Amino acid sequence: MTRHTTVEQAGEAGTIAAIRSAAPSSINGDDAAVLDSTASNSRQVCSTDILVRGRHFRFRYSSPFEVGVKAVSQNFADIQAMGGRPTALLLAIATPGDMELETISELARGIHSAAAPFGAELVGGDVVRSKDLVISLTALGELGGPAAALTLDGAGVGHQVIATGPIGYSAAGLCILEHFGSRKSVPQDDHILQKLVSWHCAPELEPGRGTVARAAGASSMTDNSDGLVADLSVIAQRSGVSIDLNPEALAPDDMLLHAAERTGGDPWEWVLTGGEDHTLVGTTDSRLPANYRPIGMVRRLADDDPNAAFVTVGGEKPAYTKGWQSL
Amino acid sequence: MTRHTTVEQAGEAGTIAAIRSAAPSSINGDDAAVLDSTASNSRQVCSTDILVRGRHFRFRYSSPFEVGVKAVSQNFADIQAMGGRPTALLLAIATPGDMELETISELARGIHSAAAPFGAELVGGDVVRSKDLVISLTALGELGGPAAALTLDGAGVGHQVIATGPIGYSAAGLCILEHFGSRKSVPQDDHILQKLVSWHCAPELEPGRGTVARAAGASSMTDNSDGLVADLSVIAQRSGVSIDLNPEALAPDDMLLHAAERTGGDPWEWVLTGGEDHTLVGTTDSRLPANYRPIGMVRRLADDDPNAAFVTVGGEKPAYTKGWQSL
Repeated sequence: MTRHTTVEQAGEAGTIAAIRSAAPSSINGDDAAVLDSTASNSRQVCSTDILVRGRHFRFRYSSPFEVGVKAVSQNFADIQAMGGRPTALLLAIATPGDMELETISELARGIHSAAAPFGAELVGGDVVRSKDLVISLTALGELGGPAAALTLDGAGVGHQVIATGPIGYSAAGLCILEHFGSRKSVPQDDHILQKLVSWHCAPELEPGRGTVARAAGASSMTDNSDGLVADLSVIAQRSGVSIDLNPEALAPDDMLLHAAERTGGDPWEWVLTGGEDHTLVGTTDSRLPANYRPIGMVRRLADDDPNAAFVTVGGEKPAYTKGWQSL
Repeated sequence: MTRHTTVEQAGEAGTIAAIRSAAPSSINGDDAAVLDSTASNSRQVCSTDILVRGRHFRFRYSSPFEVGVKAVSQNFADIQAMGGRPTALLLAIATPGDMELETISELARGIHSAAAPFGAELVGGDVVRSKDLVISLTALGELGGPAAALTLDGAGVGHQVIATGPIGYSAAGLCILEHFGSRKSVPQDDHILQKLVSWHCAPELEPGRGTVARAAGASSMTDNSDGLVADLSVIAQRSGVSIDLNPEALAPDDMLLHAAERTGGDPWEWVLTGGEDHTLVGTTDSRLPANYRPIGMVRRLADDDPNAAFVTVGGEKPAYTKGWQSL
């Protein structure tokens, strides 16, 4: 196969061979994958995401490798947000026939690379033809021991709101890409812009963030995918509480301020509504888990006020609330 | 929401609510699903399939409910073909915004209905917008006890080739649909044609087929998805053997002969290359598992002949070998 072989030329077997070579796994290759890793006294955790080219990613902005990394991050973030440990991935691709096989290989290499730090691997999948390029990734994980999973409904009044990882970087990166029009037009020597763009295109998760939070007694958890206010509103709504964020803890850092200056973007909008960072946010009534920081407090929901906000910032309704809409 | 609400009008939350109402599960609704069902001394089994409208299904031929049933059958067949027991499903949908919400609900009802006899349910998913309608379904299952999974490489010389369920019915059903041009043009009073069309649009699996075969000592297993010769060739190739099918055991039955007469189709082509029945086929060196029938024998592969066929019918190279190509 040459560098410019298409998936149509490679056929189903050739395309699957390219994926398996890019993301090797001894489990892959039968009707279904059998995972031996189940520890005794553990439960399974599973999650799926589907990405459409032009809507969730653009090759003008992201390399196929980065799209693979990001797909893993957003799936593994969901597993971590339950307190789980990611173990395996299944990849289903619908692709135009004229797609270069190398693009699919790079995507699989990105998946393999992002999964490796977790000790997880790509164990199976499916490849079919379509007009759009559509990537569906499913993550499996393990939840050890009898403790409860970190669900959305566990936040209680008086709990601290906690977060790990940057918030707003992904939205800043997207704004930079849109401002300069393409990846290669972003100034190469501006390392801050480059770093934010990288965070948008391929956010990298730290393994263990979910298990650490669960072990430390966190009460609820989700990942910052649709936007901080939107995602925390789901926790507040499910838990029947209100969440007040501390503006000082969320204030845009120097990197975001620099990007705002270069693009004219609004750094507070990035922080509050950007999403796609796939950092973990949640609540705890216990000690701070390692590498987490406090960003707010859980308050009583004014249940006599039908307009009471689920999420406030410094006690006020936030200026920005709209998150990502899938449909 | 009215009957003609679109997914764009319903939005992400409304669409997810419709799916959850059509396929209820108490596990669904958090960042990821946690499955409590893991028995001790068991392993996980997982598989995924992706379906594109116009390529894998047509609403002119199949109802959305049937598409849901078929998607479950083809995924659960893969779990069963490892000897596993299906336990859960994840559904990711990419859909045009003007898709009627009721279509998505019907699809989810079909999934729920087909999963119910297995004690399995839809536990999570994702919904996004795209031009094509693309459905990605992932199945999870359980493999109890220490016995080996039913892999593709276990067929040995002298083993019997075994099958359960009809072979060729799905291809006959598709031929009937293509012959009459649409579902509603197929003669209503011809119960044989109707039954074959139903088998194509919504093949129904018998729960327990995989666990029974594994318990009875089957040596290899797959499902008839791409075509009987194509699927058994994979077993033969992986196992380094040749498979000789017994033409008497595979001879088209009266239903297939009737359909051939009405459509001018070739019933042997349906049997040998049709696929999509999702019946289980495999090998055993032990007793026949319940509800399985013998359809051939495993022979030594003539390794001095590079043109030796992996699959023969009555000792001869089959006239038809081409199976379904995904790309």
